[in-house]
Amino acid sequence: MNFTNFDYIAMTMALLAARESAEKYGEVPIGALVARGEEFIALAANQKEQEKCATRHAEIVVTEAASAILGRWRLIDCTLYVTLEPCIMCAGAIIQARYKRIVFGTKDLKAGAMGGFCNILALPGLNHYPVIEKGLLEEECAKELKDFFLARRQLHPAKKCARRP
Amino acid sequence: MNFTNFDYIAMTMALLAARESAEKYGEVPIGALVARGEEFIALAANQKEQEKCATRHAEIVVTEAASAILGRWRLIDCTLYVTLEPCIMCAGAIIQARYKRIVFGTKDLKAGAMGGFCNILALPGLNHYPVIEKGLLEEECAKELKDFFLARRQLHPAKKCARRP
Repeated sequence: MNFTNFDYIAMTMALLAARESAEKYGEVPIGALVARGEEFIALAANQKEQEKCATRHAEIVVTEAASAILGRWRLIDCTLYVTLEPCIMCAGAIIQARYKRIVFGTKDLKAGAMGGFCNILALPGLNHYPVIEKGLLEEECAKELKDFFLARRQLHPAKKCARRP
Repeated sequence: MNFTNFDYIAMTMALLAARESAEKYGEVPIGALVARGEEFIALAANQKEQEKCATRHAEIVVTEAASAILGRWRLIDCTLYVTLEPCIMCAGAIIQARYKRIVFGTKDLKAGAMGGFCNILALPGLNHYPVIEKGLLEEECAKELKDFFLARRQLHPAKKCARRP
């Protein structure tokens, strides 16, 4: 994959948002950013535990923020950057919002819906197919999650840790 | 399927919410209700056009309302009633929220993810599988959508109507 400087900056910002949400709120560190060309539109992190709501994945939160800012539900000219491969819900939201392009950091073998656990976009007959680019800052994104779960296991050795928020 | 009186009442309420959102806001009429046993928890309709946001399907909106009311993201003791078969995004949200049971009215051959267009729950290895019951007030739920699109085509004959909000 040929990523641009802007792509690296966008994913770094998503990663910093992920880290902040883990440090401040104890959330599983997953961050997302929406850009239109090289214009930053919205940045968000996983808020599931704070909001006590299963739909508050970073991709959903940032899609809602971007739609509010742009005043429309079709994000056909936008790229979504996310540190972890989207789950089925988020892959579905990405199709619904008609994103042009998705860039994700590390794959999710347990719940990723873009090739890790399953591949929603391999289904024929969807009404939209975004371009998918994977592996941007893959090691950094994976390390953020690994460090988080390691620290949580050390703090709560008896508690079973869910891989995905 | 053996549906109870409560099931019929719950789906009728979802259907009325769907109709109201179409009449008041021009939304595609889809409604959803969350119940815990025979206790009503939350009722919502599709808000995609009002909110200008692709994630505002009835199932997502009602899941957020139910989580806010119950103060938790796990809805393991809840049933979600929805007039139309959930799409991929909403099927994913249903898995994320760990619903006990899903009851839907009419199938969606173009976008339904519980057997109509595809079947997400046929994937082995998901971390949750709700009970699915389909066909409650099927004709009424289908007619609501059919009448809506018929009226829209008569009003805007040149406009292409999306089947799904």
